[in-house]
Amino acid sequence: RRGEMAKMTQLINNEVFRAYATYAAIVLLKMMLMSLITAYFRITRKAFVNPEDTESFGKGENAKKFLRTDPDVERARRSHLNDLENIVPFVGIGLLYALSGPELSTALLHFRIFTGARILHTLAYLIPLPQPGRGLSWAVGYSVTFSMAYSVLKAAWLL
Amino acid sequence: RRGEMAKMTQLINNEVFRAYATYAAIVLLKMMLMSLITAYFRITRKAFVNPEDTESFGKGENAKKFLRTDPDVERARRSHLNDLENIVPFVGIGLLYALSGPELSTALLHFRIFTGARILHTLAYLIPLPQPGRGLSWAVGYSVTFSMAYSVLKAAWLL
Amino acid sequence: RRGEMAKMTQLINNEVFRAYATYAAIVLLKMMLMSLITAYFRITRKAFVNPEDTESFGKGENAKKFLRTDPDVERARRSHLNDLENIVPFVGIGLLYALSGPELSTALLHFRIFTGARILHTLAYLIPLPQPGRGLSWAVGYSVTFSMAYSVLKAAWLL
Repeated sequence: RRGEMAKMTQLINNEVFRAYATYAAIVLLKMMLMSLITAYFRITRKAFVNPEDTESFGKGENAKKFLRTDPDVERARRSHLNDLENIVPFVGIGLLYALSGPELSTALLHFRIFTGARILHTLAYLIPLPQPGRGLSWAVGYSVTFSMAYSVLKAAWLL
Repeated sequence: RRGEMAKMTQLINNEVFRAYATYAAIVLLKMMLMSLITAYFRITRKAFVNPEDTESFGKGENAKKFLRTDPDVERARRSHLNDLENIVPFVGIGLLYALSGPELSTALLHFRIFTGARILHTLAYLIPLPQPGRGLSWAVGYSVTFSMAYSVLKAAWLL
Repeated sequence: RRGEMAKMTQLINNEVFRAYATYAAIVLLKMMLMSLITAYFRITRKAFVNPEDTESFGKGENAKKFLRTDPDVERARRSHLNDLENIVPFVGIGLLYALSGPELSTALLHFRIFTGARILHTLAYLIPLPQPGRGLSWAVGYSVTFSMAYSVLKAAWLL
């Protein structure tokens, strides 16, 4: 049992894997933050989608008028979905990349640029910044994940 | 080759990792179940979104009337999206957490509470239960993932 | 440090894990491709959702008319969401499956059928092919993930 545990912790002691774990946790937390932002807009804008969520505002027609869409809520939801579409591939491909034995400095460069790009993307979406702010930050994150996928396929290729 | 395979299976023999694998598989299967529930409501409520899905109901206007939204279908879809937003971070952060060397009892507590909370969340969404049933079950699962992320960052922190 | 790195690369040298890494990267890249397809349809059909995305088309009413939905854009978005709902469980459960020590030939069979099924699913969605083309390709991918989940639970079961 002790021997096993020691072997397990070797993975977390590896510096590339530690860097991956740090940045993967940060971008996943950033993605989870979108739930709170959507909830904040739903409550302050009084814009809900489930009838049972409006019951505290009264019964019948009085509550029904809060079953509506709101531009800020929809914007936060789109930003959240974009995170799912981009952060999930980063976390999956990033794990394989971290296990493919890259240089620590190269790996850190990938992880840091991706994390910075996704934070900028969320700011560009929510403020919102004029284009191509959001488009560019999206493209930078996308390219980092693509670059890691290339490294993984070069190292692991087995069809 | 044999030596390698032996080393691989050490990971699955580690008790914390086995617990993680069990609960991650269960919540991912629970998430996959939402596809079947949505399909069930689409077929029984005859509410489709793709024209090619209604062709068995006849041609032209006769089929077109089934291209519509239905409250039960939309509810199942929202529950599915909420699973994606919450179960995906659990699976990603949970893997890093399992590799960070937690006590088995602490890890089991995290995995069990999360799994229970997400099953309750789906029931609260689909029945639906009055609030704050759904809200509380969401918050419990969210807090468990947050607690695991804190442990991961404490163990792995390398910016 | 060298010893650690050597242990890390043992994982990527394991043939089942290499096969997993290859197919997981391929299906994640396929999922990422959906972003480009959606962007292509948004630009060619001039159908946007964010006001700041239409500013290059002029100001005021002139730009506002491009804030609309388009059937091809919505179809690509549904295909992308279906990928998230199905490829994410494959990547998560597939990792646990690869670590549970399956035969290489059995593992390759799972990974290849899933990858083929999801490529067919995207083609069936975008062309679109008449049903049950899309339905069957979805069911095949779903069954492969389910079969891997069964193997994981049999190997790891620890509640």
